[in-house]
Amino acid sequence: MAILIENATVIDGVADTARENCSILIEGERIVQVGDVDCEKLPAGLERIDARGRFIIPGLMNANVHLFMAVNLESLSRYWDRYEDIILEASQVALKHGLTTVFDTWGPRRFLIAARDRIASGETVGARFFCAGNIVGLDGLFSPDFFSRAQEVASAVMTRRINAIWAEDMGRHLMWKTPGQVSAAIDAYLGRGIDFIKYASNEHYPGAFLAFSPDQQRAIVDAAHARGKTAQAHSMSVEGLRIAVEAGCDLIQHCNKTGPVPIPGDTLDLMARRNTGAVVFPQTDAGLAWLLENLPEEQQESWRVSHRNACNLVSAGVKLLLANDGAIMPPEWPTDPQWGKSWVTAPEAFNLAKLTTGHFVWFEAMAEKGCPPMAMLHAATRNIAEAYGMADDLGTIAAGKYADLLILEKNPLLDAKNYRTILSVMKSGKIIDREALPEHRLMSRDIEAPCEEEGRHIPFLGSGGRFPFSCC
Amino acid sequence: MAILIENATVIDGVADTARENCSILIEGERIVQVGDVDCEKLPAGLERIDARGRFIIPGLMNANVHLFMAVNLESLSRYWDRYEDIILEASQVALKHGLTTVFDTWGPRRFLIAARDRIASGETVGARFFCAGNIVGLDGLFSPDFFSRAQEVASAVMTRRINAIWAEDMGRHLMWKTPGQVSAAIDAYLGRGIDFIKYASNEHYPGAFLAFSPDQQRAIVDAAHARGKTAQAHSMSVEGLRIAVEAGCDLIQHCNKTGPVPIPGDTLDLMARRNTGAVVFPQTDAGLAWLLENLPEEQQESWRVSHRNACNLVSAGVKLLLANDGAIMPPEWPTDPQWGKSWVTAPEAFNLAKLTTGHFVWFEAMAEKGCPPMAMLHAATRNIAEAYGMADDLGTIAAGKYADLLILEKNPLLDAKNYRTILSVMKSGKIIDREALPEHRLMSRDIEAPCEEEGRHIPFLGSGGRFPFSCC
Amino acid sequence: MAILIENATVIDGVADTARENCSILIEGERIVQVGDVDCEKLPAGLERIDARGRFIIPGLMNANVHLFMAVNLESLSRYWDRYEDIILEASQVALKHGLTTVFDTWGPRRFLIAARDRIASGETVGARFFCAGNIVGLDGLFSPDFFSRAQEVASAVMTRRINAIWAEDMGRHLMWKTPGQVSAAIDAYLGRGIDFIKYASNEHYPGAFLAFSPDQQRAIVDAAHARGKTAQAHSMSVEGLRIAVEAGCDLIQHCNKTGPVPIPGDTLDLMARRNTGAVVFPQTDAGLAWLLENLPEEQQESWRVSHRNACNLVSAGVKLLLANDGAIMPPEWPTDPQWGKSWVTAPEAFNLAKLTTGHFVWFEAMAEKGCPPMAMLHAATRNIAEAYGMADDLGTIAAGKYADLLILEKNPLLDAKNYRTILSVMKSGKIIDREALPEHRLMSRDIEAPCEEEGRHIPFLGSGGRFPFSCC
Amino acid sequence: MAILIENATVIDGVADTARENCSILIEGERIVQVGDVDCEKLPAGLERIDARGRFIIPGLMNANVHLFMAVNLESLSRYWDRYEDIILEASQVALKHGLTTVFDTWGPRRFLIAARDRIASGETVGARFFCAGNIVGLDGLFSPDFFSRAQEVASAVMTRRINAIWAEDMGRHLMWKTPGQVSAAIDAYLGRGIDFIKYASNEHYPGAFLAFSPDQQRAIVDAAHARGKTAQAHSMSVEGLRIAVEAGCDLIQHCNKTGPVPIPGDTLDLMARRNTGAVVFPQTDAGLAWLLENLPEEQQESWRVSHRNACNLVSAGVKLLLANDGAIMPPEWPTDPQWGKSWVTAPEAFNLAKLTTGHFVWFEAMAEKGCPPMAMLHAATRNIAEAYGMADDLGTIAAGKYADLLILEKNPLLDAKNYRTILSVMKSGKIIDREALPEHRLMSRDIEAPCEEEGRHIPFLGSGGRFPFSCC
Repeated sequence: MAILIENATVIDGVADTARENCSILIEGERIVQVGDVDCEKLPAGLERIDARGRFIIPGLMNANVHLFMAVNLESLSRYWDRYEDIILEASQVALKHGLTTVFDTWGPRRFLIAARDRIASGETVGARFFCAGNIVGLDGLFSPDFFSRAQEVASAVMTRRINAIWAEDMGRHLMWKTPGQVSAAIDAYLGRGIDFIKYASNEHYPGAFLAFSPDQQRAIVDAAHARGKTAQAHSMSVEGLRIAVEAGCDLIQHCNKTGPVPIPGDTLDLMARRNTGAVVFPQTDAGLAWLLENLPEEQQESWRVSHRNACNLVSAGVKLLLANDGAIMPPEWPTDPQWGKSWVTAPEAFNLAKLTTGHFVWFEAMAEKGCPPMAMLHAATRNIAEAYGMADDLGTIAAGKYADLLILEKNPLLDAKNYRTILSVMKSGKIIDREALPEHRLMSRDIEAPCEEEGRHIPFLGSGGRFPFSCC
Repeated sequence: MAILIENATVIDGVADTARENCSILIEGERIVQVGDVDCEKLPAGLERIDARGRFIIPGLMNANVHLFMAVNLESLSRYWDRYEDIILEASQVALKHGLTTVFDTWGPRRFLIAARDRIASGETVGARFFCAGNIVGLDGLFSPDFFSRAQEVASAVMTRRINAIWAEDMGRHLMWKTPGQVSAAIDAYLGRGIDFIKYASNEHYPGAFLAFSPDQQRAIVDAAHARGKTAQAHSMSVEGLRIAVEAGCDLIQHCNKTGPVPIPGDTLDLMARRNTGAVVFPQTDAGLAWLLENLPEEQQESWRVSHRNACNLVSAGVKLLLANDGAIMPPEWPTDPQWGKSWVTAPEAFNLAKLTTGHFVWFEAMAEKGCPPMAMLHAATRNIAEAYGMADDLGTIAAGKYADLLILEKNPLLDAKNYRTILSVMKSGKIIDREALPEHRLMSRDIEAPCEEEGRHIPFLGSGGRFPFSCC
Repeated sequence: MAILIENATVIDGVADTARENCSILIEGERIVQVGDVDCEKLPAGLERIDARGRFIIPGLMNANVHLFMAVNLESLSRYWDRYEDIILEASQVALKHGLTTVFDTWGPRRFLIAARDRIASGETVGARFFCAGNIVGLDGLFSPDFFSRAQEVASAVMTRRINAIWAEDMGRHLMWKTPGQVSAAIDAYLGRGIDFIKYASNEHYPGAFLAFSPDQQRAIVDAAHARGKTAQAHSMSVEGLRIAVEAGCDLIQHCNKTGPVPIPGDTLDLMARRNTGAVVFPQTDAGLAWLLENLPEEQQESWRVSHRNACNLVSAGVKLLLANDGAIMPPEWPTDPQWGKSWVTAPEAFNLAKLTTGHFVWFEAMAEKGCPPMAMLHAATRNIAEAYGMADDLGTIAAGKYADLLILEKNPLLDAKNYRTILSVMKSGKIIDREALPEHRLMSRDIEAPCEEEGRHIPFLGSGGRFPFSCC
Repeated sequence: MAILIENATVIDGVADTARENCSILIEGERIVQVGDVDCEKLPAGLERIDARGRFIIPGLMNANVHLFMAVNLESLSRYWDRYEDIILEASQVALKHGLTTVFDTWGPRRFLIAARDRIASGETVGARFFCAGNIVGLDGLFSPDFFSRAQEVASAVMTRRINAIWAEDMGRHLMWKTPGQVSAAIDAYLGRGIDFIKYASNEHYPGAFLAFSPDQQRAIVDAAHARGKTAQAHSMSVEGLRIAVEAGCDLIQHCNKTGPVPIPGDTLDLMARRNTGAVVFPQTDAGLAWLLENLPEEQQESWRVSHRNACNLVSAGVKLLLANDGAIMPPEWPTDPQWGKSWVTAPEAFNLAKLTTGHFVWFEAMAEKGCPPMAMLHAATRNIAEAYGMADDLGTIAAGKYADLLILEKNPLLDAKNYRTILSVMKSGKIIDREALPEHRLMSRDIEAPCEEEGRHIPFLGSGGRFPFSCC
């Protein structure tokens, strides 16, 4: 099966500028030729797509998504038999919205691998994805690293099960170990089928504790490289970031998140010099304003610094990567009484965290921070492929690469908003039927309508209140 | 279809003694004749059962079960679409263990009614059951009346939904109302298909607060009677009990539970005089000893009093009813960190609360308290039918009644343990295939084997501990 | 020592109208003559006060105050050795603001009695007060009836101690008892020196549970009367109110608090007929508006009903009593994270709960509800004396009574605000040096200025937050 | 004033063996001569002490005590005005039990300095002490680093105050900073009068998170040294320990506490090579057995490793220091419901943490681990003086040093138990009146006898229990 896309303006991720009137010849899953295609040599049975007036870019990539985010107790229980389906649903939603390849950086390894392989084998449609399993060093979902209050209500059987599925033997206990012991654990984990290593340089959230020491971090990175895999760090402070860079990480997550202290110039220079992949989580100006208005004062400086860091990363010339923790949350979850306003519940127009549209917000935010259009395109494609060691197959429109590409109505180099004008998504040489995705809606549904009893329910007056706190 | 059971020793629940060499003729769902059956007039196509050496008693009844006890957040979520199946499973377990009719006194009305009607129509096998829905006056599952901590972890959508399904508009807010307003609410609730009213005379647990006033209680009972339905009270203290008796309740739950204060003689006399149905929850001597050994001192006096009350109820000649809160809990639930040792988690040999064997424990416990054998049989059959106003159809082996009966290997009047020797269960004229029940095991299964990740999981050392409480 | 107040306009609490040009002759603690005083017979050494243009009313009384409200863990600890001083301070604040007699309806019995007796003996200045100790049926300060979370942080020694000091043996456990047993407990409690009995007809807050049954309540009231003492109820619902009236209570607290259900006309009539003392807690229109704006929706209807009840109690002609839970809270307490907005933290202008000015708010609120000026005066003086069985000594300006009176600048019958124009307070024939009160400021102080370390303290960023609830 | 101690066996902390028949001449606060004292040159007015048959050792030192441990909310409140007194009391208790110099490594700086200076000036008797104030990097008492639940019950005013007093601006927020910023903060903190710096290499408890990075740690140590002060680390893991050694710490706390992973040989060698002061917290065999019996399984391995580490530190020849977190807790505190069994509540015979006797347990435990007698003596004297940079004044019995010494009845080199046979304590040339200490008992008292109300108190039955967790 061969396809010829003709007459397009192609932004191939290689050339410095767009190529006009350009054709792309695809055979099977891969690109055969880009530019002037020799009409004499076209294969039989060729399908031709006339892309006159359209803009073609490499399929977008996302360096940090979470395909499984049904992580509250009620969703974990309700969908107990369908974790793999939830992952497939998310990968289909990603693909529908222009992400042909994504990297899942935290989730239930066994189910992620099963879903990944079903997509890779062609059994199921979905974004191509690669996965890390656990963030090495962090404990399970119902541990203090995430939602420890769930274990007050869950049965011990459930708590143990969930913690085991997420953390296995790659949790906090590794922090006690010597570098050599940590190295052996990493090697064993890679043997269980994950695609890359993500480890904690800092504690999960919200603090500046360091998880692994510099020596442990070097041991982790070296163990991954020895297996031919990449390693990346979860970083939350300027020291956590610097240590991860020095340890030789291939890429570092949310580099611009360093609490209330901006990244020093030395560290920026080091990242540029070492060509470390730098994931940035940028807020738009509107998003930042909304956060400053809605968050408690103590958190505001961190958001201001996160903005300054993003600007500085752009001007320091580091290798930027697009990512956003993209996920689909259970629709009921934000009604959890523990939730407050946060960047993941911001209005959709500037919500960075949505798997559906967060990557578009990324472009809009980075444009506001002065990132050149072509640099943004690279951040979303070629840079990610390079940082993850997959540049032979992914990231640009070039002969030999997978035929992953988007056809846009408008030129994304003229206006970052134009990334939203996707007309078609091709992955591995196949045009995706976007309307048909996701095939099943488990997470990407609305909250169900109230049941009949809710119509007449009268909750207890003043439940739980005690004099005089919320009084008579 | 007709069946003739011959040569049996029949304890019919009517006569003062067992009838030997007795036959029972059944046509369709009902008993046609008991005693000497005229062989001339037997219908064609008769099936004959030779019960020589066997003992036949009326099908056992249980005046207080909870067919749905999957009431922790994780089970409520995991089985979100299968509440009706869980109820059917429990009704099949009950039937398998000799309970041909049970009364569900607290549970999700809509699902209970649906399951009840499927059994009543013959669509599904199961114990015949009748249901009350909510205990009027108590709030929903995730309210302070039950498991309020669940609402700290559940989404507000889930909390509202679950509370509504259980309490609808029949919760605590009714306690504020005038008797007239309460009466109207009861009438409306009966219109939604429930079979009888259960209301809170005392708070749920563990205390002596009164829920409804004497005037409100009279209004409730009268409203039920006006609809031709029975009314019963949840009582936990000597005042709660007395007020419920005076209000005219048809029966009262767990009368022997009155905290640390024994029921006064006046109240016992009043119950006998008014023929109020008195549900007793008795512990065996072994069960009581286990509780006194395992419970905190502050709770021990209440258990001693509960034993004395049971003895006094027997000797006062009140109308005793067998019941036990019989239920099947999710197998994981007792590993909930909030659980301690309690009567519902006692060793099976003397565990009163099991839907499977708790009724056998009831007989054994009451025998130890001096209850005469025939009085026990009546407590488990005829008395329940009378108290619930169903004596025309249920409770004895007599012409015109439903053919609900058990064939036992040994004589239950000789030894209470012999109730365990069930050979056959007949309900509505049909011999039940006990081996086939329950058809689906949702609750009556074992805890699943650990998943593969649990084998290698290493939980965080000292998780959550803080100096110096559980210290370095 | 004798005093003659001359030329005053006296509103004596007896006559229907004010008496102009009226004199009051006082000898020692008591009033000797009111009206035209025979100048011939005046005692030697007489002090004359010319009250021309002034208005004299009986000393104000308050039927429900809490002289000890230092009831959070940190204040209970900090002032461990000074409970009696705190009570004396409050009684001095009350006196300073025109309250010559108050009734403490809940507090630490032993310390209250000690302080009461010091004032009664003349050893210390302060409002005359009488006390109930515990609200019979409620448990201690660190129990579920009040602040149970304190016991999670306090040592068990402290918890037991505090609960014992407040509840002794008069707590919830009495609810289990038979009426006869309750009666005996009441008698014993009266033997420990309290002045009257207050018991729980409803649970403390916020609900409609009933505490004692009608029979138990009658037993309580009768036991108090048998000792020559009065009995009153804490009531929170229409049923709790009616039962307390029927039980024969001398007075009932916060009658207008009946949750979302207004008091039925029958109950109002019954109260009028039985001459039951009816304490009302009224909000001003401004106060009600503030509450409706600041409280969650579920609580609003109760406040609207509380307003309607107050109006209806006025028009039903029941015996109204002024009271307000008047107290001085530790100034730090409202910064407790458990506190929200409530009527006790409302702006001072319409805050009913302040021991200093809440009684003035009471007059202003009741005037808005249509209460006639003289009825309000009686509610604050004579009615309270009568309901508490102390009319021989207190409540009016009449020969033989204690010389408790206020000299006002303006006529309180013309405008309720004029109660605020106190010029002098006389108690037991002595003019009080109001400027000197309170002698020690433990509770009636401001929050201390920050210590030096607070100036430089930088709290941890994002303390305790966990992804994604209040997020990165 | 001069004193001559004659005929003693002196273990001076310098010589390899005890010196028999040895005299010590003291003038004023210091030692003038040790050994054969020239009788010709003795000052006038000399006091002679015949120590024939006695053993004299340098005054014991403790490298890690907490003179203020009244750190629960109720004690902090109750003794609000007496923090300085509590510190003085503890220093007197220490002195009474043979500790002439102690190092307070965590406490309220302002009050510690005030008490320290009162002792140093001779105004008050007590052990000589030096203090660090906060553990740099840890937050206040009511933060997640210590007792965060207190802030749920305390007023915000109290929480802020207490957190500020402990942490000032030296809390967790420093972890965000660059090494240069941290250095400046250290310098400022030293300017506030503390004697040495203690910082967090690991989180407080119980985990292996790293607090400061290697570069930050070097910056801290260098800043202290630049001021002529020593620096030490709180370490809890093998990486935290190694990084602190490499950073140049003068001494490191509880080196043998490294969770479940033993200290690698390389690290032991490095410590020996760099002469890093190594504080050891050893358990006796009996203490370890008690802990293994009483603690949850997950904590047991850490205790076994802690024992192995202590043995290995002995055999590796590192510079050992005696210390034990010595403190006097409020007597009520262990009844806090959050407390379980722990090493600080172990039976006194082998309780390491007591300020009174914990140092004796230290000797007994180290003897069991094979530590030579003279090495133990040095660990308790000279090594501490050296590690803290105070060897010119403290740590041995030598001319020019402070005359701090103990007269023992029995030879401590023969049996470690003999350290308990103290006959006299001399500090700065003065024999201490041990019987008179402490002058005031605030913490070192017994729990007060129950108040009268406790005798009759009946707590609520089943308080807070909810069906079915601790059931009916």
